[in-house]
Amino acid sequence: MITERALALGKKRSTIREIFEYSMRRKREIGEENVFDFSLGNPSVPSPQAVTDCLKELIENETTVALHGYTSAAGAMAVREKIAKKTYNRFDFKANPELIYMTCGAAASLSCTLSAIAGEKDEVLVLSPYFPEYRVFIENAGATVVEVPTKRDTFTLDIEKIKNATNKKTRAIIINSPCNPTGVVYSEDDIIALSDLLKEKREQYGTHITVIADEPYREIVYGDVFVPYIPNYYDDTVVCYSYSKSLSIPGERIGYIMVSPQMQYAEDVFYAVCGAARSMGYVCAPSMWQRVVAECDGIAPNIEAYNENRTLLYNALTEIGFTAVKPEGAFYLFLKSPMPDAKEFCEKAKEYELLLVPSDDFGCGGYVRIAYCVEKSVIERAIPAFRELYKEIKNG
Amino acid sequence: MITERALALGKKRSTIREIFEYSMRRKREIGEENVFDFSLGNPSVPSPQAVTDCLKELIENETTVALHGYTSAAGAMAVREKIAKKTYNRFDFKANPELIYMTCGAAASLSCTLSAIAGEKDEVLVLSPYFPEYRVFIENAGATVVEVPTKRDTFTLDIEKIKNATNKKTRAIIINSPCNPTGVVYSEDDIIALSDLLKEKREQYGTHITVIADEPYREIVYGDVFVPYIPNYYDDTVVCYSYSKSLSIPGERIGYIMVSPQMQYAEDVFYAVCGAARSMGYVCAPSMWQRVVAECDGIAPNIEAYNENRTLLYNALTEIGFTAVKPEGAFYLFLKSPMPDAKEFCEKAKEYELLLVPSDDFGCGGYVRIAYCVEKSVIERAIPAFRELYKEIKNG
Repeated sequence: MITERALALGKKRSTIREIFEYSMRRKREIGEENVFDFSLGNPSVPSPQAVTDCLKELIENETTVALHGYTSAAGAMAVREKIAKKTYNRFDFKANPELIYMTCGAAASLSCTLSAIAGEKDEVLVLSPYFPEYRVFIENAGATVVEVPTKRDTFTLDIEKIKNATNKKTRAIIINSPCNPTGVVYSEDDIIALSDLLKEKREQYGTHITVIADEPYREIVYGDVFVPYIPNYYDDTVVCYSYSKSLSIPGERIGYIMVSPQMQYAEDVFYAVCGAARSMGYVCAPSMWQRVVAECDGIAPNIEAYNENRTLLYNALTEIGFTAVKPEGAFYLFLKSPMPDAKEFCEKAKEYELLLVPSDDFGCGGYVRIAYCVEKSVIERAIPAFRELYKEIKNG
Repeated sequence: MITERALALGKKRSTIREIFEYSMRRKREIGEENVFDFSLGNPSVPSPQAVTDCLKELIENETTVALHGYTSAAGAMAVREKIAKKTYNRFDFKANPELIYMTCGAAASLSCTLSAIAGEKDEVLVLSPYFPEYRVFIENAGATVVEVPTKRDTFTLDIEKIKNATNKKTRAIIINSPCNPTGVVYSEDDIIALSDLLKEKREQYGTHITVIADEPYREIVYGDVFVPYIPNYYDDTVVCYSYSKSLSIPGERIGYIMVSPQMQYAEDVFYAVCGAARSMGYVCAPSMWQRVVAECDGIAPNIEAYNENRTLLYNALTEIGFTAVKPEGAFYLFLKSPMPDAKEFCEKAKEYELLLVPSDDFGCGGYVRIAYCVEKSVIERAIPAFRELYKEIKNG
C-alpha cells in the first residue's frame, strides 16, 4: 500500500539531513552555542543587500496579481532573457532564453534534467566523492549510477578512469565544479581533456553523452581561481544552476536549467525537461523569486567571509595534525578521517558536539565533510573541540 | 537519448497551458483588452492585505539567513504546528504537525502523495470531469487511471458507478471539492455515502483505499454552502492543500500534505511522502512563504468579487441560450458546448477572441471550462462576443 522505494528514501533520509535534524534537537537540549554544526550547506553569510532591496521594491510597486501570479511553466520570458544576457556578458556564451527553464533550485534542476534525458538501460557517471542526492535523482529517472573515482591525492579529474567507465550505455556525466564535498575546482586543461574524451567516445559509439554541469558553487571561489564555463568547451551540455548559495537563499528554491543551444536536438531536450518537470508536479518556479534573481544574477556573495573561515579552519586543523586538500571553491573542507571508519569518527566527534558528515554516502570512505559556511565564531569555538578529539583518537 | 514520455508531455503541454501561452502571444498582437482569456485559474483578486503585510514585516524584522535558509524537508515545525492548530479550530479535527509536509503547491502535493502510495498494478479513481494533470501524476507514479463519471446532470458523486469501478487493485480515489472544472461542492450526504462504500470495499478486499482530498478551492464557496472536511468522515485520507487560490499566490508554489493521524500506518505514509518528494528533487517548500501562510492560513479571499463574476457570467450566458450548472464553489463555469465537438467550439470561440478550455482533457466531452477569476470588466466586454458566437452557431 506504500511505495517501497519512497518509504525507504523517506525513512532513511539523507545522512546530511539526518544530522541537521539531530543538530536542531541537540541545540534545543544544550543551547545553540554549544553545538558545532558543520553538517549542512546553509550559508551563514547574509544575502547581498540587493536581494532585500529588490524584494522590497517589488512588494512596494507591483500588484500582488502580477507579482504572485503564475508564470509560464518555464518561467517568465523577461526573466529568462535577462539571465541569457548576463550569461553572455559574463561567459561570452550565447544562451537562448527559449532554452532556459526556471526551477525550484539545484535539486529540481538535476532531477528534471536527469528524468528528461536518462532512463532504463542508461548509465550516468558521477565522480566520487559526489553529492549523495545524485544517486537518488539518477535512480528516480530509472537509470544506473556509475561511480568513477577522482584522483585520490587531489580529487581532480582522472581522465583515464572516466575513459574506462564510458561505454555505449553512457548517457551523461555530472560535473560539479567547484565541487561539493571537496572544494576542488577542475582546471581548464582538465575540462578540455574531458571534452576531447567525450567527443571521441560519442563518435566511437554513435551516441550522445551529455555533461550535466551542476554549478551552485560557481560564484564561490577563492583568489584568482578560474572556473571554466563548460558550454564553452563542450556542446552537449546542460547547466543546472541554483541561486541558493550565491545569494544565500537556499530555502527559497530558485535556480534554472540552461540547455546549450549548441547541443544536438537542443529544443527536444528542452521540451523533455518541461515534460519531466510537469510530470513531477513542478508548475513554475516561485514567481517573485524569479524576478529577484533576474536582477541579482551575477552579484558576488561575501566571499571574504567564507575565505576567512576557510583559512582559519584549514590552518587550525592541519596544525592540529589533520590532513585535507585546501579547497579552492565552495564552502566545504574534505578532511581525512583519522580513524579508518569515517562513520565511527563522526560518532566520536559527536561526543565533542562536532557534527560532521561521513564521506561514505559520497561514494568514498575515510573522509568527513565539514561545511564551513557557519559563523566564524562557531569555528573559533570548535577548534579546541577538534584538538581534544584528535588527541583522544591519537592517544587511544 | 531523450526520455520519450517526458518529451511527449513537454511537447504537448497541458491544453490549459497551451491556451495560456497563445493568449500571451495574442495579447501582444491585438492588445490585452481585446483578448478574453478564460483559460487559466490565475486569480484576479488581489492577495489579502495580510499577505503583503506579513511579507513586509518578515523582510523588515528577520535576518536573511533565518528567513531564506533551509527548513526541515517537511517544513519548519513552527509552521506545521500553526497549521495543525488552525485545522483544529476550523474543522474540529486533530491534525498532527508531525504528519504535515509543506509542499511547492497543489501539483507537488498530489504528485508526492501519489508517488508515495501508488505504484504499478495500482488503480487510482478519478471522477470525470477531472483536472487533467491528475492523469500525469498518477502515471508518473506508475499507477493506472480509472475514470468514473459523475452524474451527468449535476456532476455530483455517482456512488453506484464508484462502487462498480472499485476492486482489489483500487489504491486511492481523488476527491476535488469544490470541483475544478465544474464548481460543484459534494454534499455531506454524498461524502458519507462515499465513506461507507470505501469502508465496505476495504473490508471486502482486505486492502487500503485512500481518499486524496485535493482542496485548493476549499475557501472559495458561495452563500452558505458547506464543504465537508473529509478526514472527519473517512480515516484513510490525505489532504492535499494549496494556498494558490485562497491567498491569490499561485506563482509562489506553497501548500501542504496532511496525512490523517487516523489513517493506518500514517507515519509510514508520511515517510513515503518525504521519500517521494526527495526523489523528485523537492528539498523544502519556499521558506519565506512557509512563514507567510502559517500566519495567513484560513483568511478568506475576496469571495464577493468572484461571486459577482459568477452571477454576471452565469446569468448572461444562460440568458443568451447556453446551459450550465450554476457553480457553488471554485471559479469555473462548466458550460455545455452548443456544438457536438467542444474542441471545434473552442476554435470557433477563438475567432471572437474568447479563450475557453475544451472539456475533452477533463475526461468528458461536450463541455468547455470558463475560468471566471478575471477582472469583471473582461466578462462585461466578453458578453457581446459570446452572444455573437452563439448566434453564429445557431444560425449556422
